[in-house]
Amino acid sequence: MTDPDYVRIFDTTLRDGEQSPGATMSHSEKLEIASMLDEMGVDIIEAGFPIASEGDFAAVSEIAKRSQNSVICGLARAQIPDIDRCWEAVKHARQPRIHTFIGTSPLHRAIPNLDMDQMAERIEQTVTHARNLCEDVQWSPMDATRTEHDYLCRVVEIAIKCGATTINIPDTVGYTAPLESADLIRMLLNRVPGADGVIFSTHCHNDLGMATANSLAAVAGGARQIECTINGLGERAGNTALEEVVMAMRVRNDIMPYATRIDTTKIMGLSRRVSQVSGFVVQPNKAIVGKNAFLHESGIHQDGVLKNVETFEIMKPADIGLNEANIAMGKHSGRAALRAKLSELGYEVGDNQLKDIFVRFKSLADRKKEVFDEDLVALMQDSAANTAEDHLQVKHLRVVCGSDGQSADLTMLVDGEEKTVHASGDGPVDACFNAVKQIFPHQARLQLYQVHAVTEGTDAQATVSVRMEEDGRIVNGQAADTDTILASVKAYVGALNHLIVRREQLGKDGDSKQISMYSH
Amino acid sequence: MTDPDYVRIFDTTLRDGEQSPGATMSHSEKLEIASMLDEMGVDIIEAGFPIASEGDFAAVSEIAKRSQNSVICGLARAQIPDIDRCWEAVKHARQPRIHTFIGTSPLHRAIPNLDMDQMAERIEQTVTHARNLCEDVQWSPMDATRTEHDYLCRVVEIAIKCGATTINIPDTVGYTAPLESADLIRMLLNRVPGADGVIFSTHCHNDLGMATANSLAAVAGGARQIECTINGLGERAGNTALEEVVMAMRVRNDIMPYATRIDTTKIMGLSRRVSQVSGFVVQPNKAIVGKNAFLHESGIHQDGVLKNVETFEIMKPADIGLNEANIAMGKHSGRAALRAKLSELGYEVGDNQLKDIFVRFKSLADRKKEVFDEDLVALMQDSAANTAEDHLQVKHLRVVCGSDGQSADLTMLVDGEEKTVHASGDGPVDACFNAVKQIFPHQARLQLYQVHAVTEGTDAQATVSVRMEEDGRIVNGQAADTDTILASVKAYVGALNHLIVRREQLGKDGDSKQISMYSH
Repeated sequence: MTDPDYVRIFDTTLRDGEQSPGATMSHSEKLEIASMLDEMGVDIIEAGFPIASEGDFAAVSEIAKRSQNSVICGLARAQIPDIDRCWEAVKHARQPRIHTFIGTSPLHRAIPNLDMDQMAERIEQTVTHARNLCEDVQWSPMDATRTEHDYLCRVVEIAIKCGATTINIPDTVGYTAPLESADLIRMLLNRVPGADGVIFSTHCHNDLGMATANSLAAVAGGARQIECTINGLGERAGNTALEEVVMAMRVRNDIMPYATRIDTTKIMGLSRRVSQVSGFVVQPNKAIVGKNAFLHESGIHQDGVLKNVETFEIMKPADIGLNEANIAMGKHSGRAALRAKLSELGYEVGDNQLKDIFVRFKSLADRKKEVFDEDLVALMQDSAANTAEDHLQVKHLRVVCGSDGQSADLTMLVDGEEKTVHASGDGPVDACFNAVKQIFPHQARLQLYQVHAVTEGTDAQATVSVRMEEDGRIVNGQAADTDTILASVKAYVGALNHLIVRREQLGKDGDSKQISMYSH
Repeated sequence: MTDPDYVRIFDTTLRDGEQSPGATMSHSEKLEIASMLDEMGVDIIEAGFPIASEGDFAAVSEIAKRSQNSVICGLARAQIPDIDRCWEAVKHARQPRIHTFIGTSPLHRAIPNLDMDQMAERIEQTVTHARNLCEDVQWSPMDATRTEHDYLCRVVEIAIKCGATTINIPDTVGYTAPLESADLIRMLLNRVPGADGVIFSTHCHNDLGMATANSLAAVAGGARQIECTINGLGERAGNTALEEVVMAMRVRNDIMPYATRIDTTKIMGLSRRVSQVSGFVVQPNKAIVGKNAFLHESGIHQDGVLKNVETFEIMKPADIGLNEANIAMGKHSGRAALRAKLSELGYEVGDNQLKDIFVRFKSLADRKKEVFDEDLVALMQDSAANTAEDHLQVKHLRVVCGSDGQSADLTMLVDGEEKTVHASGDGPVDACFNAVKQIFPHQARLQLYQVHAVTEGTDAQATVSVRMEEDGRIVNGQAADTDTILASVKAYVGALNHLIVRREQLGKDGDSKQISMYSH
């Protein structure tokens, strides 16, 4: 880290990403993503906002305990109880960090009604308090890009004097442009006493489509940490995409001579998993991780690529972990081959789990000639999503649909008790969901329903994503099956199982997302 | 256009966008998109690549004839027959443009095996020929960002001397970064004699996620035309997104004091339509046009937004034509209300069409409590997609599915003749598609199958997108219905109808996409 051209990658998929409407993740999903980020070589993982809810606190604590190489960071507002709670969660990590922030622009100062001096005093108190608990303290002036330069210099100086070791400069509303972004960091490095003793960080949003360029410009201006998320997940147009800044510094190392320790071959695996867990699709024309990013259609380009791959390709698919030789498995593949393939895909399974997965693999191979990597990933996720501990389980389903109307016969277990109903509806999916509602009445509203074929061909498995909302709480469910309707019911029931867990958690601490950020 | 800070918007959705694997559009879809672009205030519409196929030629000719305010441009390689064919298509326009190009980087020079002098000579001949046909000639050195500066200056000078009026500088592989992009245009303006008499243009790809910033940097460097596409549609990671550059120049006019004549309130309508026609989903966290771009989840942000909308919003949803007051229609809505609503959504319908749409609207309103704008758009598209002239038409469908297996009974009209079959499959969709295959045997492969709910709620309509491939030709089908399975069958049959049309066209001129760009 003493290399002056080393750029730290700070991933906030689990905090700023998870904050996106609908991207709520379960406890076990958060642990899984954190472990993948750690393994990929992310320097700092922002694991959550501990005071926001019991669930956030538990996730940050557990991620801290399990961390291997990454610094584990928690978010805290500029308030003593927030900072204490954050420390309680991150202190288990080998390398803990407290990240505290306050909005410093005129618009943001107006909300808690603090004048410049009062806010400066608050910053002094809170950063000092954080540093007394933890050696690694990051401080952010929220909406920095719309804060007066003189005031920004003043508060950054205070934060440094009180012991902040990283100063993060957020473009909270995705408002800046590259030259301005570089100039802002340069201005701070030139004007603020002590600036050379801390790491400056950039945190950009993509509202105008320039988050990647703005982050890299900040690095050119002197920042040595980039805050980002997988797939650019985040509120509104999202955060800077990790895969874009990392690959840009690698591909254009001639003009951006900076180093990271990211293992880029883990990018595709993380991109797919974050997309599935968050329910946020990645568009085909997304840079680096889109399905088309390495495809060529026009005769012109194909001709060039066949003659010399560099004519149109500046990266190799293998650089980001895209396996070109996607060799299919089939019904003659054995248990050892399956285990080896799963291990290659990042899943280490015990003997008992392998036994269960193998049965499901065989059943899939019977229905589908070729079982591809994507099919196995869907199978593993489906198996992780539906467990025996679930309150609601689907036992049997029969659906009739088509031009003459639709109806469903459904049998489910509700906490072990079998119930059967018959229902009709507008379309087979509606009929099935009505049947589930008869068995388990609820007021949750269906916000999103999506079906994607996992691979090509009409016999492909379909993955269904369902997002539901109850009293402002959002839950997701996912399932995969060659039968779209069956997968739909399993995904819907999966979301309800999440909802039941959520209700139980909230019995304790109220709605996590309703706390106000402004302390008066 | 004499304003020195006026930036021309050159849209290539119909050429570089349509070139994306899977984004093939039908003739009528191209005309519709072109008319929407013209109405939005796009300065130049690149309507296609006339020599590529009869279909491309017909589309460019028809768009040229119908054009109102936009310049209509066609693409041509550096060959006399290409340029002649291009002129034949665009000459019908009030303001025609020929756009001719050749790859000038070392990698691209190597493929047709031309040395620097031979290529210079080819450029002289072809640009002169184009200018003899048309007063408005654009010339592009493909892969300009990887071309030696001295050689780039030399060939740009030749193109200007031979009469090119616009010089477009393509970053063909999405390789550049903002400073480099600005410097390149500046270098050309400084070094090339006659550069001040032409318009420089920028054409960026998004492989490293920086297309928007690179385009705007080129403008800062002196370019006065941006080539872009709706939703950033395009090969690999796509082209510069029109909505991003236009909104960035508007929101940050303080640091980017440039003007366009784009009516930004048309952006959402075009974004939706291009997504539907191309089958390319827009991810929720896409800048400007993503579903979440104007949504706020966290308590922190909601609190701020409620107190002052500017705390987290730098644009208003209405600026891009996002109608916040999405007032639902219902079964009591009359014909006049429907016509008014359709007109508001951009559909002007005649009395006969209204009669047909009204029947379908009533049937939908019977099944669905509230009919939203999105439902009407889906209905209009479904009605445009399936017409009486189709070779294949679905008459009746009955499907059984669930835990015990799946089967379908299907009746279709094949050129007016009724056929009925029974089929089974792996899942209800597979069973239905097998039934269609029994009635209309074909070898096309299903490449993509996606289902999206049009609005929230379990009674929502589903839109199904299907993409199929036969001998390298790709076709799409789309349909909407509250019954997902019925919509799937209609979308699949829609794609087959496109395929039949495609086969008929190709009987004449071979596969449009297989021509080589390199002339030897």
